[in-house]
Formats: sequence, structure tokens, C-alpha cells
Amino acid sequence: MKRTVFYISDGTGITAETIGHSVLTQFEGVEFTTTRLPFVDSMDKAREAADRVRHESEACGCRPIVVNTVVDPEMSRLIAESGALMLDVFAPFIAPLEQELGMKRQNRVGKAHGLVNFQEYESRINATNYALSHDDGIDPNFNEAEVILVGVSRSGKTPTCLYLALHFGIRAGNYPLTPDDLEKGVLPPKLLAQRQRLFALTIDPMRLRQVRESRKPGSRYATLDQCRYEVTEAEKLFKRERLPVLSTTHTSIEEIASKILQTLGIQRHLF
Amino acid sequence: MKRTVFYISDGTGITAETIGHSVLTQFEGVEFTTTRLPFVDSMDKAREAADRVRHESEACGCRPIVVNTVVDPEMSRLIAESGALMLDVFAPFIAPLEQELGMKRQNRVGKAHGLVNFQEYESRINATNYALSHDDGIDPNFNEAEVILVGVSRSGKTPTCLYLALHFGIRAGNYPLTPDDLEKGVLPPKLLAQRQRLFALTIDPMRLRQVRESRKPGSRYATLDQCRYEVTEAEKLFKRERLPVLSTTHTSIEEIASKILQTLGIQRHLF
Repeated sequence: MKRTVFYISDGTGITAETIGHSVLTQFEGVEFTTTRLPFVDSMDKAREAADRVRHESEACGCRPIVVNTVVDPEMSRLIAESGALMLDVFAPFIAPLEQELGMKRQNRVGKAHGLVNFQEYESRINATNYALSHDDGIDPNFNEAEVILVGVSRSGKTPTCLYLALHFGIRAGNYPLTPDDLEKGVLPPKLLAQRQRLFALTIDPMRLRQVRESRKPGSRYATLDQCRYEVTEAEKLFKRERLPVLSTTHTSIEEIASKILQTLGIQRHLF
Repeated sequence: MKRTVFYISDGTGITAETIGHSVLTQFEGVEFTTTRLPFVDSMDKAREAADRVRHESEACGCRPIVVNTVVDPEMSRLIAESGALMLDVFAPFIAPLEQELGMKRQNRVGKAHGLVNFQEYESRINATNYALSHDDGIDPNFNEAEVILVGVSRSGKTPTCLYLALHFGIRAGNYPLTPDDLEKGVLPPKLLAQRQRLFALTIDPMRLRQVRESRKPGSRYATLDQCRYEVTEAEKLFKRERLPVLSTTHTSIEEIASKILQTLGIQRHLF
């Protein structure tokens, strides 16, 4: 079975797409073709979007599905007139919340999706610059870091730091364990001084080999022996220092970032 | 008025938090205290979460609000027994979709939020490495780029490239316009050869001055005159080359990324 899905939003449509994807994957065997219609923030654009849905409906001879995060009820009504199955993300929440809080919601197109806020923007950019300048031990001064990730090369530190910065505005640095650290089995004193902000990442040696092999094919660095040695020594070290450890082997970047914040008790700085 | 909000999820809780934030900002004047309870993926954890909500309810003497993205109906039922106002993100979609598609949904905890998929993971990591190695003109070979951002220094190219990589798995490089490019008023031939993948970013000179000043205080680079000159020449160049242009001054990174994909007709590679 095939179905067409439209993600319609007055913002980027990323939220609509994420939610729609979560729900639709629960219907196995249906082949969904998806289209994102972002920035539908005027009556004209709502009409255009509805036309687009209507055309699709006629072309395929079946009823399209719309996942809608347009906040304005008038615009949503226009889109609903296309005849699609409307799955409205916000609508089901409004009446219960209005009743619970004893007030009407204020209707502000786009606002829900975050018009840019200079302070938030700056906090993201600063955190991103921080991650870039404190990546891979470039600058080993971690005084301003909120999180310092420790792990062997290619264990997932860099993308996690960048995700923490871009998503949550959190300054995260990372420190790759050196052969010297692994041999001595101790962390450098400058890191131990920041113990409460350290978080260790580990990875299955077989998986690490794959990752390193695709990066530096045929190198000693990518051999299973080398990967096994580094991971074993690193894990011993983490245990000795009682650092919180997470394996990135079966964990997505979102999950890694989320678990780090939970473990270290850090709140995200922005939305 | 104060209210406590819990974001409860069988995954990271990031989706619940994003949606909840969008809805709650529509109720001005209420002060919401929020807590994220991620990875609620067993009956035991659901019971724990419900207890936590119940305690909060007793402590504050008011009814907490729960934004719930736990997929499993049994676990959601347990959480609902806490007595909180339940705002369930997926539940309102299930019955209409089951009816429309003529089938029952398959219930899979965690799956909705994307257990890690090695191929997706690799595509994100490769795209992130690409962005890092093709940032700021480090490697001017853009043959493998899907998007090439062009703009003056500090116009928002780097965070946008990283966002495109981490979020969508898209390989984006960026090219900072040099004094030479601005003076001659032409783009280097290697860029023009990739014309259909070029996207230009611009920025208000006053805002640019702020950004550069906080980066390099007191430098000529950060003077309003210099910022004005560079932006004026860059915009002339973009116009002459008929590049798609977006101003980043009042645009969030999500919006910039989303508009680039829309303009260049690129679909996101992953969720």
C-alpha cells in the first residue's frame, strides 16, 4: 500500500516531520512518500498548501495524510479543506490546557517555532566555537567546559560535542586518550581537576575497527588488535577513576547527548 | 501562576520537550518549571515516573502537566494514573490512522525514536567529518558537496553546515569570500563549476559588527566600515551571479538549514 504524507508547518517543519516519522513507522508494510511544506505562515500560503495537497489527492486517487504543526486555527482550517486526513499536533493539547490553566492561549504564528533570539543564537554559536576549538585536545584548557568527553579516537566524542552545542547551547570539550595515558593508566592531572564534568565514551572494538578502517584503511590504527587493546585499557582506566561511561555502539547521538545531560544533571540552555 | 511540567519519553524526550515548549509558550504569564524523564521504556520505569509526578503533585499542591511520547499504551496508562494532566503526543493520531489505513499499528517501544541504525549513523558522522574538513575553505575541493555555502566571515556558514550534517546527514562545505574575491567581484572558477549547489548567506552589517567584535575585540575586521564594505560587495556579487541568498540576521539555524534544503530541492537523508 502506498500513501502520500505532507508535513505542513508555519516554521521549519522539522518537528512535524519527526513526530510524523515516529507515528508512521508503527505502520509496517505501508510505503509512505513524504513532502515537507515549511513556512506556511499566511492565509495565502495555507491556500497554496491546500491546493498542493488537493492536486496530489487527484493525481494518486487516494487520500493524502497531513501532519500539521501550523499554530493558527484559521490557516489549519484552510488546509483541512483539502480533504486530507488531518493529524494536528497542537490542536489536541489546546482545549485541555485552556481548561486546566483557566485562560485562552495566545495565538502567535511562528513564535511557537522560535523566532530567532539573539541571546540563544549567541549561546549556540559560542558553544559551537567552543566545541570546534576544544576538539581532539587542540586546546587542553577545559576551564570553561560544562562537559568534557573522554575516550579513544573515533569513539563518538566530536559529533556528540557538536550536537550538545548546536542543540542545547552547552560548551563541551573532548579529550582523546593518548598512548601514554593508556599505558600509564591514569588521566592527566588537568582533567582530574575537572572530575565532576568528565564523561567517558566507549565503543565495541569490532565496531571501532569498522569506523577506523573506513577512515584510515589498512592502518595499524584500524586493526582489531589495536582497537581491542585501546578499548580494554580505556575501560580499565574509566573504572579506576569511577567515571560515568556510556557505550556508543548502539546509541544514537541524540541518546548519547541526552544521557550525558541526565547523568551530569545539566539542563539544556535553549530550544 | 506556576505549573510543573514533565516531559516523559521512551527515548531521549527531545521531541516531547520541543512540542511541549511550542504549546506552552502560547500561555503567557504562566511560569512553567520543566523536568525531562527520558528512557522510560519498561513498566518499572513507567511506575517510577508516575511516582515522581505524584510526589511533585503532593509537594506543590497542584496538578502537574505531563507531555508524553511513550509509545506503549500500557506504560502510558500507568503514567496517567499519577493524576497529572496527560498530553499524549502520539495517542490522538493512532485511531484515525488505524481507520484510514485499515490496519492496527505495531507497538514497538523505542523504535519510534530510532534505535541506532549503523548506516544512518555513518551518514551523519561522514557528513560531520565532511563539514569539519571543508570548513572555512580548508579544503577547497567541493566535488562531493551537496551544498556549498558562500558568505563573508561570521555570516553563519559553519554552524549551518554542522547542523545540515548532524541533522540531515547532508555533506555541506563552506567558502568564505576573500578580500580578493570581493575586490574583483567574481567567484573562483572552482566554485562556479558547482553553481547549482551554491547558496549564499548574508547578514546585517550592524549585527555582523557585534558578532565579530565579540570574537576579535577592537580589530579592524570588526569595524562597522569593514563589515559594511564586505556585506555590500558580497551582496553585489551574489546578485550578479544570481545565487539564492538568505539573510541570517533574524533566522535561526534550523530555519536557515530548512530553507536551503527547500531552495536547492534536497531531501533530508535521515531522521
